[in-house]
Amino acid sequence: MREKKTDGLGFVETQSVVLCHEGLPLDSGETLGPITVAYETYGTLSEKRDNVILVCHALSGGAHAAGWHEGARKPGWWDCMIGPGKGFDTDKYFVLCSNNLGGCYGTTGPSSIDPATGKPYGLSFPVVTIRDMVNLQARLLDHLEIPSVLTVTGGSMGGMLALQWGVAYPERVRSTIVIAASHEHSPQQIAFNEVARQAIMADPAWNHGDYYGTEGPRLGLGVARMVGHITYLSDSGMQRKFGRRLQDRERYGYDFSQDFEVESYLRHQGQSFVERFDANSLLYLSKALDYFDLTQGFPSLTEAFERARGPYLLIAFSSDWLYAPEQVKTIAKAIRRAGGDATYYEISSDYGHDAFLLDYARQEPLVRPFLARVYEAAEGKHAGANAQ
Amino acid sequence: MREKKTDGLGFVETQSVVLCHEGLPLDSGETLGPITVAYETYGTLSEKRDNVILVCHALSGGAHAAGWHEGARKPGWWDCMIGPGKGFDTDKYFVLCSNNLGGCYGTTGPSSIDPATGKPYGLSFPVVTIRDMVNLQARLLDHLEIPSVLTVTGGSMGGMLALQWGVAYPERVRSTIVIAASHEHSPQQIAFNEVARQAIMADPAWNHGDYYGTEGPRLGLGVARMVGHITYLSDSGMQRKFGRRLQDRERYGYDFSQDFEVESYLRHQGQSFVERFDANSLLYLSKALDYFDLTQGFPSLTEAFERARGPYLLIAFSSDWLYAPEQVKTIAKAIRRAGGDATYYEISSDYGHDAFLLDYARQEPLVRPFLARVYEAAEGKHAGANAQ
Repeated sequence: MREKKTDGLGFVETQSVVLCHEGLPLDSGETLGPITVAYETYGTLSEKRDNVILVCHALSGGAHAAGWHEGARKPGWWDCMIGPGKGFDTDKYFVLCSNNLGGCYGTTGPSSIDPATGKPYGLSFPVVTIRDMVNLQARLLDHLEIPSVLTVTGGSMGGMLALQWGVAYPERVRSTIVIAASHEHSPQQIAFNEVARQAIMADPAWNHGDYYGTEGPRLGLGVARMVGHITYLSDSGMQRKFGRRLQDRERYGYDFSQDFEVESYLRHQGQSFVERFDANSLLYLSKALDYFDLTQGFPSLTEAFERARGPYLLIAFSSDWLYAPEQVKTIAKAIRRAGGDATYYEISSDYGHDAFLLDYARQEPLVRPFLARVYEAAEGKHAGANAQ
Repeated sequence: MREKKTDGLGFVETQSVVLCHEGLPLDSGETLGPITVAYETYGTLSEKRDNVILVCHALSGGAHAAGWHEGARKPGWWDCMIGPGKGFDTDKYFVLCSNNLGGCYGTTGPSSIDPATGKPYGLSFPVVTIRDMVNLQARLLDHLEIPSVLTVTGGSMGGMLALQWGVAYPERVRSTIVIAASHEHSPQQIAFNEVARQAIMADPAWNHGDYYGTEGPRLGLGVARMVGHITYLSDSGMQRKFGRRLQDRERYGYDFSQDFEVESYLRHQGQSFVERFDANSLLYLSKALDYFDLTQGFPSLTEAFERARGPYLLIAFSSDWLYAPEQVKTIAKAIRRAGGDATYYEISSDYGHDAFLLDYARQEPLVRPFLARVYEAAEGKHAGANAQ
């Protein structure tokens, strides 16, 4: 398998389609349309159209989950997990990933042109939710004539979309793999997002979201990403990676340039993010995260899962303090209380929250047999596979 | 005792003295002087001058540790611990607290007037270290004719000053109480400070530190404080205090004003900090924290403590993830390895790092007998009390 991996998917291309010409009704009460959706697919759709893995991306991800774009220096964000012989094996499964509503990688978001004005939406873009994003993905499945997916999966925000899928469209989801996510944003998670938003909005170059055609809030967005990035790493991982090592100097500089490797690393992360991400999209996507609460409309989390079907695989990482193991375990317990089938794994890792993007060697052995079991059940006894 | 507490210290006043007319040599190699030092004292100095408790403040604290200033809405920052009948009992002890070098509450810092130019120092103020701050405190003790202190104590940055005291001036310290501090700043702690600094410096109103006489970097400083404040609270404490409760609205607003109580609270914390703190001081003090490394000049932490004398009381809080119990425990172990007397307590609390300012009811019973023991040893057999 590992030999196959070096081949990988090779070059891939993002496709796009315009949907919701008559408008997508949003949680806010507004209606948005038409909506362009960017997506990529890897592998081959089976004749029965029953081998679809819907991959949902995290905050700063996009449709480009795997393979290479022409001229790119890096492959897609989950290339370590998606490809021939990999965890999500494209020799067997048809993997679909779409950019989320509100994003900036091809799907309609605040940086897109509003057809009504011919100008970028900016803050006139409606605030969207995880549920809105999932509803748009369902429209994409309709367009692709995919009645249901073998599994829906994702880490971080992607995990929240996966959770929302099972509750919103139980009949279209045969199984769910949730990695490093929570069923509702905690006050600490909201707090970090609020700091990121305030950092962006404090930058005069943000200009109330009307900055397209200018450099935009580069400094504010950089700070926002720096604070986010700290929450993606673990304390122990940072100790291992940086310690108190100095960057390009032998002794303290006694100034405010930069002394420590960790400072240099964070500044670099902030700056490179500015080159690739839209500040308004960060506002919208972070707000969607904060609004996420799977229990909305239900008396309890357990009752939210009563409609859900098919087995759940839930994965947490020991050193992830942003979406801590305890939060993932809470989801597993609620699914079981609702009579569902939930398998929970805590992977020991010092990568922190970022582990879901990095620690493929330990995710693969969990994902692969889970998928095989669901797929065989689907092939063998289609009707039965839908029952809990 | 609790009855006495309601009386408290009443009104207190900050005093100040100008020291180091010939300059204080700093770790950076620069020399700074004259230096104004603001300080407060509570209780009565004994005839033997042997009942002094030197209290060191945290990042945003000052000399006003206890009692009330005329017209103030709050008492000093550690009023719960200092006063007649309290943990640091002013009926028995003479408590001294001075504003740290680089601060903005009366001791010379970047917002002070540089006598050489007649203008505020701004960024021409030299970068100072925890050791520089302690050296200045030693000059203050000289001025007050206090040969040694019964105990030196503090939480957070104050705890680092206390640690530095024992290593730098072992002959002047009879005991040490360190609360929620570490012997060196970890990469995660540095990272959060760097985000705060970048938030300030990203604000155009910061103007390279030359903003005195203007409004200054209000937005940047607010963001800096917000991120700091998150690190002072625990996830569980935030759950208890805020949960996902909305602020002044019944349902999500689908906008970027504010939805959640925790957002409102953080913004308020940021804004009120801006009214009371100097942005450049935050840069300088956070840099001093990041530079702090007690092992500097020693082969190991254990060897750093070989010169230290007198018993140590070390207190950590279970939910403090900024200066986590493990870090405090590391200090206790090193002291013991060096042959010293270290007592370590972990207080179960969901207040996070802020617990050292709030959870007096559980700190008092640890501090009081420790102080009594040291004081009696000092009274009974002065020479012996200095020996380990």
